[in-house]
Amino acid sequence: MKIVKQPDGVVRRLPRYYRYLADLNQMGISRVSSKDLSARIGNTPSQVRQDFNCFGGFGQQGYGYDVDTLYKAIADILGLNETNNMIIMGAGRLGQALANYTYFEKKGFKLTGIFDVRSSVIGKQIRGVDIRHINELESFVHDNPVDIAALAVPKDQINDVADAVARLGIKGIWNFTPMELKVEDHIIVENIQLSDSLMTLGYRLKEAAEDPKV
Amino acid sequence: MKIVKQPDGVVRRLPRYYRYLADLNQMGISRVSSKDLSARIGNTPSQVRQDFNCFGGFGQQGYGYDVDTLYKAIADILGLNETNNMIIMGAGRLGQALANYTYFEKKGFKLTGIFDVRSSVIGKQIRGVDIRHINELESFVHDNPVDIAALAVPKDQINDVADAVARLGIKGIWNFTPMELKVEDHIIVENIQLSDSLMTLGYRLKEAAEDPKV
Repeated sequence: MKIVKQPDGVVRRLPRYYRYLADLNQMGISRVSSKDLSARIGNTPSQVRQDFNCFGGFGQQGYGYDVDTLYKAIADILGLNETNNMIIMGAGRLGQALANYTYFEKKGFKLTGIFDVRSSVIGKQIRGVDIRHINELESFVHDNPVDIAALAVPKDQINDVADAVARLGIKGIWNFTPMELKVEDHIIVENIQLSDSLMTLGYRLKEAAEDPKV
Repeated sequence: MKIVKQPDGVVRRLPRYYRYLADLNQMGISRVSSKDLSARIGNTPSQVRQDFNCFGGFGQQGYGYDVDTLYKAIADILGLNETNNMIIMGAGRLGQALANYTYFEKKGFKLTGIFDVRSSVIGKQIRGVDIRHINELESFVHDNPVDIAALAVPKDQINDVADAVARLGIKGIWNFTPMELKVEDHIIVENIQLSDSLMTLGYRLKEAAEDPKV
């Protein structure tokens, strides 16, 4: 299937449909309506149908969706049956936490390398993956194609590390630092802004406290 | 100022404006236009003005915004000058990584407790904060009001932990597990879905690979 650039909202809903369908599959439920899906995702049934129509449909009027078919189709759309090789830059607590998530691996995101600058961690392993000095990055990427670099380095090192990663041809950056990266347009950056998320939560709590009815 | 419930998009942009204004402030830049702000945030100048109008304005036609005034106003709107007491449920690698982020503390999110069930971690401290057994949660919350619980426990424990937290009257949940929580409507849940974010990145890489022009 030809892939066209889809709006951000649609793409961000795909993993959520995927997780819900995985749950349904596990519960032995074989059929789901756009209404049930929308109740879970928090959108409308017509938006659900529209989302899937972006990728060619999959539903049948009056029947809904076959759970297993849709689950596999979304896995396929998301590329979860392919392998994305990933490295983690920074082996601090966050880098280590990421390296230990085996769930990513199950979804095709294969951890192949971990890089740091501190001699206290270099030479160690996490789940059998070596922690290397960042000086070895260039030769590593030359020998082992890397699709994604997760950046879990301190804020003051982020621009240098992002530059190094982009220069070596790594096309996907998963950024955990509270910085908007300046990289070339062809690099795809996905941000996890922990502090933004926490501030959003703080705002919503304040809002609710000032007006319990909202 | 009376706070009304703002759309999600506006609220999520506030921390990004805030971070950018902090950078400008640090660089000694005292004035910024809605055009500059929009270029950084990736929206339009009119959307910037509209966002701030939700909270009463702050700009002046032909001048733009005074950086320090706007920075302080957003901090105030976000409640960053108030204290939100936060506990972390789960002292695994992720919980430890969260506990070690001092940035949150600077923004008023004060870590007051860490809870786990494993004897290997209970009794230890992170940044002077005790790791306690989850059995102590009720008495702890009774003595120490808690606004936010960050949930960094394994997936199979998440529902029990979320229920316990909600039952004790904690109103904000910061959820790090790949589960949509079922909690009462008055509980505010903010999700950090790491795997959704990674899948989104994987999708965008696939999309770009299939059509380098997009």
